[in-house]
Amino acid sequence: MIKPLEGTIEEQLLKLELAALDQWNNGDPSGYLDLSADDVVYFDPFLEQRLTGKTALTAYYEALRGTIKVDRNEFINPLVQVSGNMAVLTFNLNAYVREAVYRWNCTEVYRQEETGWKIIQTHWSFVKP
Amino acid sequence: MIKPLEGTIEEQLLKLELAALDQWNNGDPSGYLDLSADDVVYFDPFLEQRLTGKTALTAYYEALRGTIKVDRNEFINPLVQVSGNMAVLTFNLNAYVREAVYRWNCTEVYRQEETGWKIIQTHWSFVKP
Repeated sequence: MIKPLEGTIEEQLLKLELAALDQWNNGDPSGYLDLSADDVVYFDPFLEQRLTGKTALTAYYEALRGTIKVDRNEFINPLVQVSGNMAVLTFNLNAYVREAVYRWNCTEVYRQEETGWKIIQTHWSFVKP
Repeated sequence: MIKPLEGTIEEQLLKLELAALDQWNNGDPSGYLDLSADDVVYFDPFLEQRLTGKTALTAYYEALRGTIKVDRNEFINPLVQVSGNMAVLTFNLNAYVREAVYRWNCTEVYRQEETGWKIIQTHWSFVKP
């Protein structure tokens, strides 16, 4: 049974994303791993090609555990497009690490499952690398 | 009425994507514009932030019309995730322009509408920029 969530789908997804991001910013990938579906696919600027499946993503994230510390984020202009049991969350993000700022584009595709909203696609890229 | 398309959803989407890409490679953005929904959102590495809506995407693409010539593509490892009326197409792409090769990550989110499959989200980024 799906546990009812409060708020609009947009509010639900932003809450999930920001909670996972907060953990990530403190070196803990568990939030994103818990949110990701078994068939998740993943892009970021450090990979040679797409990662395919949660086993691959878990290995990648676990190797990063404890290595990341983001001091502060600006979460910019989030938008959610919903259709059926899928929702696309897009946003820009400025991540401040000491004196540096990293400017990101991000696309998350969520699918509603029995256990709640799960990410099936993540794409992080740099703004004007 | 939705015109029946031949083949699996994966085959349909790859055919649409590759046809639009072939036009793009010859300087014509019309294929991608025809495929894009009114609420499309778009990221690429040359933009300061997400483009939101087909009007913005049209202005951006039309300014590029006639300026792009890709000699050859390698379309790598495409995958389609379908749920309800939405489908996520992800792939890597090597684009050869004279002696140079540009290596891309790409995510396209398609939604099935009365007029066929339409893109509601495009995200292009460079591999290891």
